Amino acid sequence: MSATPVIGQWSHDQYLEQVLAFHGHTAPGVVIGGYMVEAARRALPDGVLFDAVSETVQCLPDAIQLLTPCTIGNGWLRVYNLGIFALSLYDKHTGRGVRVRLDAERLRAYPDVRSWFLKEKPKKEQDSDAIARQIREGGFDMLSSAPVQIHPDILARQGKGPVVRCPDCGEYYPARFGDRCRLCQGNGPYERWNS
Amino acid sequence: MSATPVIGQWSHDQYLEQVLAFHGHTAPGVVIGGYMVEAARRALPDGVLFDAVSETVQCLPDAIQLLTPCTIGNGWLRVYNLGIFALSLYDKHTGRGVRVRLDAERLRAYPDVRSWFLKEKPKKEQDSDAIARQIREGGFDMLSSAPVQIHPDILARQGKGPVVRCPDCGEYYPARFGDRCRLCQGNGPYERWNS
Repeated sequence: MSATPVIGQWSHDQYLEQVLAFHGHTAPGVVIGGYMVEAARRALPDGVLFDAVSETVQCLPDAIQLLTPCTIGNGWLRVYNLGIFALSLYDKHTGRGVRVRLDAERLRAYPDVRSWFLKEKPKKEQDSDAIARQIREGGFDMLSSAPVQIHPDILARQGKGPVVRCPDCGEYYPARFGDRCRLCQGNGPYERWNS
Repeated sequence: MSATPVIGQWSHDQYLEQVLAFHGHTAPGVVIGGYMVEAARRALPDGVLFDAVSETVQCLPDAIQLLTPCTIGNGWLRVYNLGIFALSLYDKHTGRGVRVRLDAERLRAYPDVRSWFLKEKPKKEQDSDAIARQIREGGFDMLSSAPVQIHPDILARQGKGPVVRCPDCGEYYPARFGDRCRLCQGNGPYERWNS
Protein backbone atom coordinates (compact mmCIF):
# COMPACT_ATOMS: atom_id res chain seq x y z
CA MET A 1 0.00 0.00 0.00
CA SER A 2 1.75 3.05 -1.27
CA ALA A 3 1.03 6.55 0.04
CA THR A 4 1.88 8.16 -3.31
CA PRO A 5 -0.80 10.72 -4.18
CA VAL A 6 -2.89 9.46 -7.06
CA ILE A 7 -6.32 10.97 -6.44
CA GLY A 8 -5.95 14.62 -5.59
CA GLN A 9 -3.78 14.86 -2.50
CA TRP A 10 -4.54 11.28 -1.54
CA SER A 11 -3.24 7.79 -2.20
CA HIS A 12 -5.78 5.17 -3.19
CA ASP A 13 -6.06 4.00 0.41
CA GLN A 14 -6.31 7.48 1.85
CA TYR A 15 -9.07 8.21 -0.63
CA LEU A 16 -10.90 5.08 0.50
CA GLU A 17 -10.91 6.49 4.04
CA GLN A 18 -12.40 9.76 2.79
CA VAL A 19 -15.07 7.88 0.88
CA LEU A 20 -15.93 5.80 3.93
CA ALA A 21 -16.29 8.90 6.11
CA PHE A 22 -18.43 10.87 3.69
CA HIS A 23 -20.37 8.30 1.70
CA GLY A 24 -20.74 5.68 4.45
CA HIS A 25 -19.18 2.79 2.54
CA THR A 26 -16.49 2.33 -0.09
CA ALA A 27 -18.93 1.94 -2.97
CA PRO A 28 -17.25 1.01 -6.27
CA GLY A 29 -18.91 3.99 -7.94
CA VAL A 30 -17.38 6.56 -5.61
CA VAL A 31 -13.94 4.93 -5.76
CA ILE A 32 -13.98 4.86 -9.55
CA GLY A 33 -15.37 8.39 -9.42
CA GLY A 34 -12.20 9.50 -7.66
CA TYR A 35 -10.14 8.48 -10.69
CA MET A 36 -12.69 10.13 -12.97
CA VAL A 37 -12.49 13.46 -11.16
CA GLU A 38 -8.71 13.28 -11.12
CA ALA A 39 -8.56 12.44 -14.84
CA ALA A 40 -10.85 15.36 -15.66
CA ARG A 41 -8.89 17.75 -13.52
CA ARG A 42 -5.57 16.76 -15.09
CA ALA A 43 -7.09 17.43 -18.52
CA LEU A 44 -8.06 21.01 -17.64
CA PRO A 45 -5.56 23.85 -18.03
CA ASP A 46 -3.78 24.76 -14.79
CA GLY A 47 -5.59 27.22 -12.59
CA VAL A 48 -8.85 27.30 -14.51
CA LEU A 49 -11.95 27.98 -12.40
CA PHE A 50 -14.17 25.02 -13.06
CA ASP A 51 -17.70 23.85 -12.37
CA ALA A 52 -18.85 20.24 -12.44
CA VAL A 53 -21.60 18.12 -13.90
CA SER A 54 -22.57 14.64 -12.80
CA GLU A 55 -24.72 12.68 -15.24
CA THR A 56 -26.08 10.49 -12.47
CA VAL A 57 -27.35 10.98 -8.93
CA GLN A 58 -25.55 7.83 -7.87
CA CYS A 59 -22.09 7.90 -6.32
CA LEU A 60 -20.38 10.35 -8.69
CA PRO A 61 -21.68 13.50 -6.98
CA ASP A 62 -19.93 12.39 -3.80
CA ALA A 63 -16.59 11.88 -5.56
CA ILE A 64 -16.90 15.39 -6.99
CA GLN A 65 -17.81 16.87 -3.61
CA LEU A 66 -14.90 15.09 -1.90
CA LEU A 67 -12.29 16.13 -4.44
CA THR A 68 -13.27 19.56 -5.74
CA PRO A 69 -14.71 22.82 -4.34
CA CYS A 70 -17.95 21.99 -6.17
CA THR A 71 -20.93 20.94 -4.03
CA ILE A 72 -24.61 20.60 -4.77
CA GLY A 73 -25.41 23.34 -2.25
CA ASN A 74 -22.97 25.93 -3.59
CA GLY A 75 -24.19 25.46 -7.13
CA TRP A 76 -20.83 24.61 -8.65
CA LEU A 77 -21.95 20.99 -9.06
CA ARG A 78 -25.06 20.22 -11.07
CA VAL A 79 -26.50 16.76 -10.86
CA TYR A 80 -28.51 15.37 -13.77
CA ASN A 81 -30.61 12.24 -13.48
CA LEU A 82 -29.47 10.70 -16.75
CA GLY A 83 -28.36 7.43 -15.21
CA ILE A 84 -25.07 7.68 -17.11
CA PHE A 85 -21.82 7.01 -15.29
CA ALA A 86 -19.97 10.06 -16.54
CA LEU A 87 -18.94 13.46 -15.24
CA SER A 88 -17.54 16.66 -16.63
CA LEU A 89 -15.44 19.49 -15.29
CA TYR A 90 -15.54 22.68 -17.33
CA ASP A 91 -14.27 26.24 -17.38
CA LYS A 92 -17.09 28.17 -15.74
CA HIS A 93 -16.60 31.13 -18.07
CA THR A 94 -16.24 29.46 -21.47
CA GLY A 95 -18.07 26.18 -20.83
CA ARG A 96 -15.21 24.24 -22.40
CA GLY A 97 -14.30 21.16 -20.48
CA VAL A 98 -13.66 17.48 -20.39
CA ARG A 99 -16.07 14.62 -19.96
CA VAL A 100 -14.84 11.39 -18.37
CA ARG A 101 -16.79 8.18 -18.51
CA LEU A 102 -16.35 4.64 -17.36
CA ASP A 103 -15.68 2.78 -20.62
CA ALA A 104 -17.30 -0.64 -20.98
CA GLU A 105 -14.84 -1.57 -23.73
CA ARG A 106 -11.84 -0.84 -21.56
CA LEU A 107 -13.49 -2.79 -18.76
CA ARG A 108 -13.04 -6.05 -20.67
CA ALA A 109 -9.68 -6.22 -18.86
CA TYR A 110 -11.50 -5.83 -15.51
CA PRO A 111 -14.33 -8.34 -15.78
CA ASP A 112 -15.81 -8.00 -12.29
CA VAL A 113 -15.98 -4.22 -12.60
CA ARG A 114 -17.57 -4.62 -16.02
CA SER A 115 -20.11 -7.06 -14.67
CA TRP A 116 -20.92 -4.63 -11.81
CA PHE A 117 -21.20 -1.71 -14.26
CA LEU A 118 -23.50 -3.55 -16.67
CA LYS A 119 -25.49 -5.08 -13.80
CA GLU A 120 -24.96 -8.56 -15.15
CA LYS A 121 -25.35 -10.18 -11.73
CA PRO A 122 -27.54 -9.53 -8.69
CA LYS A 123 -25.63 -7.66 -6.01
CA LYS A 124 -25.31 -10.67 -3.74
CA GLU A 125 -23.54 -12.67 -6.47
CA GLN A 126 -21.00 -9.93 -7.14
CA ASP A 127 -17.47 -10.49 -5.87
CA SER A 128 -16.87 -7.22 -4.04
CA ASP A 129 -13.25 -8.06 -3.21
CA ALA A 130 -12.49 -8.70 -6.87
CA ILE A 131 -14.24 -5.48 -7.85
CA ALA A 132 -12.23 -3.48 -5.31
CA ARG A 133 -8.96 -5.12 -6.44
CA GLN A 134 -9.64 -4.49 -10.11
CA ILE A 135 -10.53 -0.85 -9.46
CA ARG A 136 -7.22 -0.41 -7.65
CA GLU A 137 -5.33 -2.10 -10.51
CA GLY A 138 -7.27 -0.42 -13.26
CA GLY A 139 -7.53 3.15 -12.05
CA PHE A 140 -7.33 5.55 -14.95
CA ASP A 141 -7.07 2.69 -17.46
CA MET A 142 -10.81 2.02 -17.07
CA LEU A 143 -11.76 5.48 -18.30
CA SER A 144 -12.21 7.42 -21.52
CA SER A 145 -12.19 11.19 -21.86
CA ALA A 146 -13.36 13.62 -24.51
CA PRO A 147 -13.79 17.39 -24.86
CA VAL A 148 -17.17 18.81 -24.09
CA GLN A 149 -18.95 22.13 -24.50
CA ILE A 150 -21.57 23.10 -21.92
CA HIS A 151 -24.77 24.60 -23.29
CA PRO A 152 -24.90 28.41 -23.01
CA ASP A 153 -28.23 28.21 -21.16
CA ILE A 154 -26.48 26.31 -18.36
CA LEU A 155 -23.61 28.80 -18.21
CA ALA A 156 -25.99 31.77 -17.96
CA ARG A 157 -26.76 31.05 -14.34
CA GLN A 158 -30.34 31.93 -13.61
CA GLY A 159 -30.89 33.70 -10.33
CA LYS A 160 -33.71 32.66 -8.03
CA GLY A 161 -35.56 35.89 -8.90
CA PRO A 162 -38.19 37.49 -6.66
CA VAL A 163 -39.83 35.39 -3.96
CA VAL A 164 -43.55 35.46 -3.21
CA ARG A 165 -45.79 33.97 -0.58
CA CYS A 166 -47.84 30.93 -1.52
CA PRO A 167 -51.56 31.72 -1.19
CA ASP A 168 -52.25 28.12 -0.14
CA CYS A 169 -49.59 27.21 2.42
CA GLY A 170 -47.92 30.54 3.16
CA GLU A 171 -44.46 29.32 2.19
CA TYR A 172 -42.10 31.67 0.32
CA TYR A 173 -40.98 30.45 -3.09
CA PRO A 174 -39.56 31.81 -6.38
CA ALA A 175 -42.31 33.65 -8.25
CA ARG A 176 -41.23 32.10 -11.55
CA PHE A 177 -42.47 28.68 -10.33
CA GLY A 178 -46.10 29.75 -10.77
CA ASP A 179 -49.08 31.08 -8.83
CA ARG A 180 -48.54 28.72 -5.93
CA CYS A 181 -45.52 26.88 -4.57
CA ARG A 182 -44.43 23.62 -6.12
CA LEU A 183 -45.40 21.70 -2.98
CA CYS A 184 -48.99 22.93 -3.37
CA GLN A 185 -48.75 22.10 -7.09
CA GLY A 186 -48.21 18.50 -5.99
CA ASN A 187 -44.52 18.26 -6.88
CA GLY A 188 -43.03 17.55 -3.47
CA PRO A 189 -42.03 14.33 -1.73
CA TYR A 190 -44.80 14.50 0.87
CA GLU A 191 -48.07 12.73 1.33
CA ARG A 192 -48.96 15.09 4.18
CA TRP A 193 -47.30 18.19 5.49
CA ASN A 194 -48.14 21.32 7.44
CA SER A 195 -46.58 24.69 7.20
CA MET B 1 -17.19 32.46 21.64
CA SER B 2 -18.31 29.38 23.46
CA ALA B 3 -17.30 25.88 22.40
CA THR B 4 -20.53 24.33 23.71
CA PRO B 5 -21.91 21.93 21.11
CA VAL B 6 -25.04 23.38 19.56
CA ILE B 7 -25.03 22.00 16.01
CA GLY B 8 -24.29 18.30 16.12
CA GLN B 9 -20.91 17.85 17.75
CA TRP B 10 -19.93 21.44 16.98
CA SER B 11 -20.23 24.88 18.50
CA HIS B 12 -21.50 27.65 16.24
CA ASP B 13 -17.93 28.71 15.45
CA GLN B 14 -16.72 25.18 14.84
CA TYR B 15 -19.62 24.66 12.48
CA LEU B 16 -18.67 27.84 10.59
CA GLU B 17 -15.24 26.29 9.98
CA GLN B 18 -16.84 23.13 8.59
CA VAL B 19 -19.07 25.20 6.33
CA LEU B 20 -16.12 27.19 5.06
CA ALA B 21 -14.15 24.04 4.25
CA PHE B 22 -16.98 22.25 2.45
CA HIS B 23 -19.13 24.99 0.96
CA GLY B 24 -16.36 27.50 0.25
CA HIS B 25 -17.87 30.39 2.20
CA THR B 26 -20.03 30.82 5.28
CA ALA B 27 -23.23 31.43 3.35
CA PRO B 28 -26.19 32.41 5.57
CA GLY B 29 -28.22 29.56 4.09
CA VAL B 30 -25.78 26.85 5.14
CA VAL B 31 -25.31 28.33 8.61
CA ILE B 32 -29.06 28.54 9.19
CA GLY B 33 -29.30 25.08 7.66
CA GLY B 34 -27.12 23.77 10.46
CA TYR B 35 -29.73 24.80 13.01
CA MET B 36 -32.46 23.36 10.81
CA VAL B 37 -30.78 19.95 10.58
CA GLU B 38 -30.12 19.96 14.32
CA ALA B 39 -33.74 20.93 15.10
CA ALA B 40 -35.04 18.15 12.87
CA ARG B 41 -32.72 15.59 14.36
CA ARG B 42 -33.70 16.51 17.93
CA ALA B 43 -37.35 16.03 16.96
CA LEU B 44 -36.78 12.46 15.72
CA PRO B 45 -36.89 9.52 18.14
CA ASP B 46 -33.45 8.44 19.35
CA GLY B 47 -31.67 5.97 17.14
CA VAL B 48 -34.08 6.09 14.22
CA LEU B 49 -32.52 5.48 10.80
CA PHE B 50 -33.40 8.55 8.82
CA ASP B 51 -33.24 9.84 5.27
CA ALA B 52 -33.34 13.50 4.28
CA VAL B 53 -35.13 15.79 1.88
CA SER B 54 -34.04 19.28 0.87
CA GLU B 55 -36.71 21.39 -0.79
CA THR B 56 -34.10 23.55 -2.50
CA VAL B 57 -30.83 22.99 -4.34
CA GLN B 58 -29.36 26.02 -2.61
CA CYS B 59 -27.29 25.74 0.55
CA LEU B 60 -29.46 23.31 2.53
CA PRO B 61 -28.12 20.15 0.86
CA ASP B 62 -24.66 21.07 2.12
CA ALA B 63 -25.85 21.50 5.72
CA ILE B 64 -27.45 18.07 5.51
CA GLN B 65 -24.33 16.50 4.02
CA LEU B 66 -22.10 18.09 6.67
CA LEU B 67 -24.23 17.03 9.61
CA THR B 68 -25.81 13.68 8.73
CA PRO B 69 -24.80 10.46 6.98
CA CYS B 70 -27.08 11.49 4.11
CA THR B 71 -25.39 12.57 0.86
CA ILE B 72 -26.68 13.10 -2.64
CA GLY B 73 -24.46 10.30 -3.92
CA ASN B 74 -25.50 7.66 -1.39
CA GLY B 75 -29.17 8.32 -2.02
CA TRP B 76 -30.10 9.08 1.58
CA LEU B 77 -30.53 12.75 0.65
CA ARG B 78 -32.96 13.74 -2.05
CA VAL B 79 -32.85 17.25 -3.40
CA TYR B 80 -35.97 18.84 -4.86
CA ASN B 81 -35.88 22.03 -6.86
CA LEU B 82 -38.88 23.64 -5.18
CA GLY B 83 -37.03 26.80 -4.19
CA ILE B 84 -38.40 26.47 -0.64
CA PHE B 85 -36.06 26.95 2.28
CA ALA B 86 -37.13 23.86 4.21
CA LEU B 87 -35.82 20.38 4.89
CA SER B 88 -37.11 17.16 6.38
CA LEU B 89 -35.58 14.20 8.12
CA TYR B 90 -37.73 11.09 8.24
CA ASP B 91 -37.74 7.49 9.38
CA LYS B 92 -36.65 5.64 6.26
CA HIS B 93 -38.98 2.74 6.99
CA THR B 94 -42.21 4.52 7.96
CA GLY B 95 -41.74 7.84 6.17
CA ARG B 96 -42.76 9.71 9.31
CA GLY B 97 -40.58 12.67 10.03
CA VAL B 98 -40.23 16.31 10.77
CA ARG B 99 -40.07 19.26 8.43
CA VAL B 100 -38.17 22.37 9.51
CA ARG B 101 -38.49 25.67 7.72
CA LEU B 102 -37.13 29.16 8.10
CA ASP B 103 -40.15 31.10 9.35
CA ALA B 104 -40.63 34.61 7.93
CA GLU B 105 -42.93 35.52 10.84
CA ARG B 106 -40.33 34.59 13.43
CA LEU B 107 -37.75 36.49 11.42
CA ARG B 108 -39.41 39.80 12.29
CA ALA B 109 -37.09 39.76 15.32
CA TYR B 110 -34.10 39.32 12.99
CA PRO B 111 -34.69 41.96 10.31
CA ASP B 112 -31.51 41.55 8.30
CA VAL B 113 -32.00 37.81 8.05
CA ARG B 114 -35.62 38.40 7.04
CA SER B 115 -34.56 40.88 4.40
CA TRP B 116 -31.99 38.39 3.06
CA PHE B 117 -34.57 35.59 3.06
CA LEU B 118 -37.24 37.60 1.25
CA LYS B 119 -34.66 39.11 -1.12
CA GLU B 120 -35.75 42.63 -0.27
CA LYS B 121 -32.36 44.12 -1.13
CA PRO B 122 -29.74 43.46 -3.79
CA LYS B 123 -26.87 41.42 -2.41
CA LYS B 124 -24.46 44.35 -2.33
CA GLU B 125 -26.80 46.34 -0.08
CA GLN B 126 -27.17 43.54 2.44
CA ASP B 127 -25.32 43.89 5.73
CA SER B 128 -23.56 40.55 5.90
CA ASP B 129 -22.15 41.18 9.37
CA ALA B 130 -25.61 41.93 10.74
CA ILE B 131 -26.98 38.81 9.03
CA ALA B 132 -24.25 36.65 10.55
CA ARG B 133 -24.77 38.19 13.99
CA GLN B 134 -28.53 37.71 13.90
CA ILE B 135 -28.19 34.09 12.80
CA ARG B 136 -25.89 33.45 15.75
CA GLU B 137 -28.34 35.15 18.12
CA GLY B 138 -31.44 33.65 16.61
CA GLY B 139 -30.43 30.05 16.01
CA PHE B 140 -33.37 27.74 16.57
CA ASP B 141 -35.68 30.69 17.34
CA MET B 142 -35.85 31.51 13.61
CA LEU B 143 -37.37 28.14 12.74
CA SER B 144 -40.69 26.34 12.76
CA SER B 145 -41.19 22.59 12.69
CA ALA B 146 -44.09 20.30 11.88
CA PRO B 147 -44.65 16.58 11.37
CA VAL B 148 -44.50 15.27 7.84
CA GLN B 149 -45.32 12.05 6.05
CA ILE B 150 -43.24 11.10 3.02
CA HIS B 151 -45.14 9.79 0.03
CA PRO B 152 -45.05 5.97 -0.28
CA ASP B 153 -43.75 6.25 -3.86
CA ILE B 154 -40.64 7.97 -2.51
CA LEU B 155 -40.13 5.36 0.20
CA ALA B 156 -40.39 2.50 -2.30
CA ARG B 157 -36.92 3.11 -3.60
CA GLN B 158 -36.80 2.38 -7.28
CA GLY B 159 -33.75 0.48 -8.43
CA LYS B 160 -31.89 1.56 -11.53
CA GLY B 161 -33.16 -1.54 -13.34
CA PRO B 162 -31.42 -3.11 -16.35
CA VAL B 163 -28.95 -1.05 -18.31
CA VAL B 164 -28.79 -0.98 -22.11
CA ARG B 165 -26.49 0.51 -24.71
CA CYS B 166 -27.62 3.67 -26.44
CA PRO B 167 -27.92 3.02 -30.19
CA ASP B 168 -26.85 6.61 -30.92
CA CYS B 169 -23.86 7.32 -28.67
CA GLY B 170 -23.00 3.90 -27.26
CA GLU B 171 -23.36 4.98 -23.64
CA TYR B 172 -24.91 2.60 -21.11
CA TYR B 173 -28.05 3.91 -19.41
CA PRO B 174 -31.13 2.61 -17.53
CA ALA B 175 -33.49 0.97 -20.01
CA ARG B 176 -36.51 2.57 -18.36
CA PHE B 177 -35.37 5.99 -19.65
CA GLY B 178 -36.42 5.11 -23.19
CA ASP B 179 -35.05 3.82 -26.51
CA ARG B 180 -32.00 6.07 -26.34
CA CYS B 181 -30.10 7.72 -23.53
CA ARG B 182 -31.30 11.00 -22.07
CA LEU B 183 -28.28 12.82 -23.48
CA CYS B 184 -29.30 11.77 -26.99
CA GLN B 185 -32.89 12.73 -26.13
CA GLY B 186 -31.55 16.25 -25.63
CA ASN B 187 -31.84 16.37 -21.84
CA GLY B 188 -28.21 16.88 -20.89
CA PRO B 189 -26.21 19.99 -20.09
CA TYR B 190 -24.09 19.86 -23.23
CA GLU B 191 -24.07 21.73 -26.48
CA ARG B 192 -21.49 19.31 -27.89
CA TRP B 193 -20.06 16.08 -26.57
CA ASN B 194 -18.41 12.95 -27.82
CA SER B 195 -18.54 9.49 -26.38
